[in-house]
Amino acid sequence: MSIQKNQGLFLVLEGGEGVGKTTNMAFIQQYLKQQCIVFQHSREPGGTELAEKIRELILSKHSEPVSNMTELLLMFAARAQHIHQKINPVLNSGEWLICDRFTDATYAYQGGGRGFDKALIEQLEQLVQEDLRPDCTIILDAPVEVGFARANARAELDRMESEPASFHEAVRQSYLERAEKTPDKYAVINANQALEQVQTAIKKQLDKLIHEYRS
Amino acid sequence: MSIQKNQGLFLVLEGGEGVGKTTNMAFIQQYLKQQCIVFQHSREPGGTELAEKIRELILSKHSEPVSNMTELLLMFAARAQHIHQKINPVLNSGEWLICDRFTDATYAYQGGGRGFDKALIEQLEQLVQEDLRPDCTIILDAPVEVGFARANARAELDRMESEPASFHEAVRQSYLERAEKTPDKYAVINANQALEQVQTAIKKQLDKLIHEYRS
Repeated sequence: MSIQKNQGLFLVLEGGEGVGKTTNMAFIQQYLKQQCIVFQHSREPGGTELAEKIRELILSKHSEPVSNMTELLLMFAARAQHIHQKINPVLNSGEWLICDRFTDATYAYQGGGRGFDKALIEQLEQLVQEDLRPDCTIILDAPVEVGFARANARAELDRMESEPASFHEAVRQSYLERAEKTPDKYAVINANQALEQVQTAIKKQLDKLIHEYRS
Repeated sequence: MSIQKNQGLFLVLEGGEGVGKTTNMAFIQQYLKQQCIVFQHSREPGGTELAEKIRELILSKHSEPVSNMTELLLMFAARAQHIHQKINPVLNSGEWLICDRFTDATYAYQGGGRGFDKALIEQLEQLVQEDLRPDCTIILDAPVEVGFARANARAELDRMESEPASFHEAVRQSYLERAEKTPDKYAVINANQALEQVQTAIKKQLDKLIHEYRS
C-alpha cells in the first residue's frame, strides 16, 4: 500500500446483509479515536444531503419496477456527489474518511447481483472517481444464510435486502473475488465467529494501517 | 427518415427556456388527434413515477452545489427508467410517443451549457438507449433574450432556468449544431414570430411525418 502524504486515508467497510457492518463500524470509529486518528465517517449510497435523497430513491420500493440501468446510474450519481462534496475535501484536508460501502458494493450488487458487466462498472468508476480508490477495504464475510437470519430479524427489508438468496450469494462471491485479485488492498474478515474475534481481526488491520500511515 | 413498421413514431419537441414548448406541445397533440394518430405524451427528465422523482432532484435548488457529473448521471438514470418503463412499451405497441425533451437536451444543457465532452454523452446515450433515437425532433428556436424575457415572467425559476445568459446561449448553439449535422432528423422552427406562423411550420412538419408514416 502506498499512502499519499498529506492526504487522509480512505478506509471502506464492506459486506453483505447482516454481516455486522453497523456494530463494527462503531467499533472502528471508537478504536481510531483512541489512536488519535482524525477522521470523518460516511456511507454509500449517500453521504451528502443530495446523495442521501438519491439513496432513498435507490433503496425504497416503488410502484414500478426499477430498471437495472437506472439503479446503476443512480448509484454512480450519488457517488459523484459524495466524492465532490465530501470524500475529496475530507481526504485533501488530511483527515481520514471511513465509509460504510463504496464501489466494491457496486461490483457486488449491480455486477454480481444484477449481472452487469464488470467492464461497464469499471468505465463508470473511472469516469466518476478518476484516481480515487480506497486505500483499504475491510470485507466482513459470512455465509449468506447467517447474514440473512440477522437481517430478517430487523424491521422492514429494503429493495436490496428483499432480493433472493441467489442474489446475495452472487454478492458475496463478487466481494471475495475482488479481494482475491488485489489482496494488498483488502482485508477479508470472517464475520461468522464471536464478535470479540471479529474485532480482534479488525483491530489488527487498523493497527497495520495506522503504522503504515505514520511511518 | 426510415420508420420501422409496426412501431410507433418517436417525436421529440426541444428548445431552450421560454421558446413556447408548452403551448406548442398542446398544439401538436391537438393536431395529431385531429389526424387520428394514436399517441401518448411524456416529458424528460421524468415520464414515470420514479423518473419524475429524479427530475425533482435535478431541477430543485439544493443546499449544496450539485456536481456536473451528478446532474449528468441523474439525467441518464431518469432516461433509462423512462425508456424501460414507458417509451419502449409505447413504441412497441404501435402508438406514437410525443416527448417534451430528450437526449438533445442533454447535449445542449450538460454538453453545451456545462461543458461536458460530447463523446462522453454519446457513450452514455449508447449505453442507456441502445438503438433508440427519435424519429424526428422539432426544435423551437429563439434568441436567448427573447426566451429569457418569457421565462422570467413565470413564477419561480428552477436550477437550469437560473443559469446565466452565456449558459443559455451555449444551449441554443448546441441545439442548432445538432440539427445541422443530421438535418433529416430535425426541424428547426423559428419561435420568434407570431404563434400562428410557428404553428403553421409545426403543422407542415407533422403532415410530412404522418405522410411518411402512413405510406
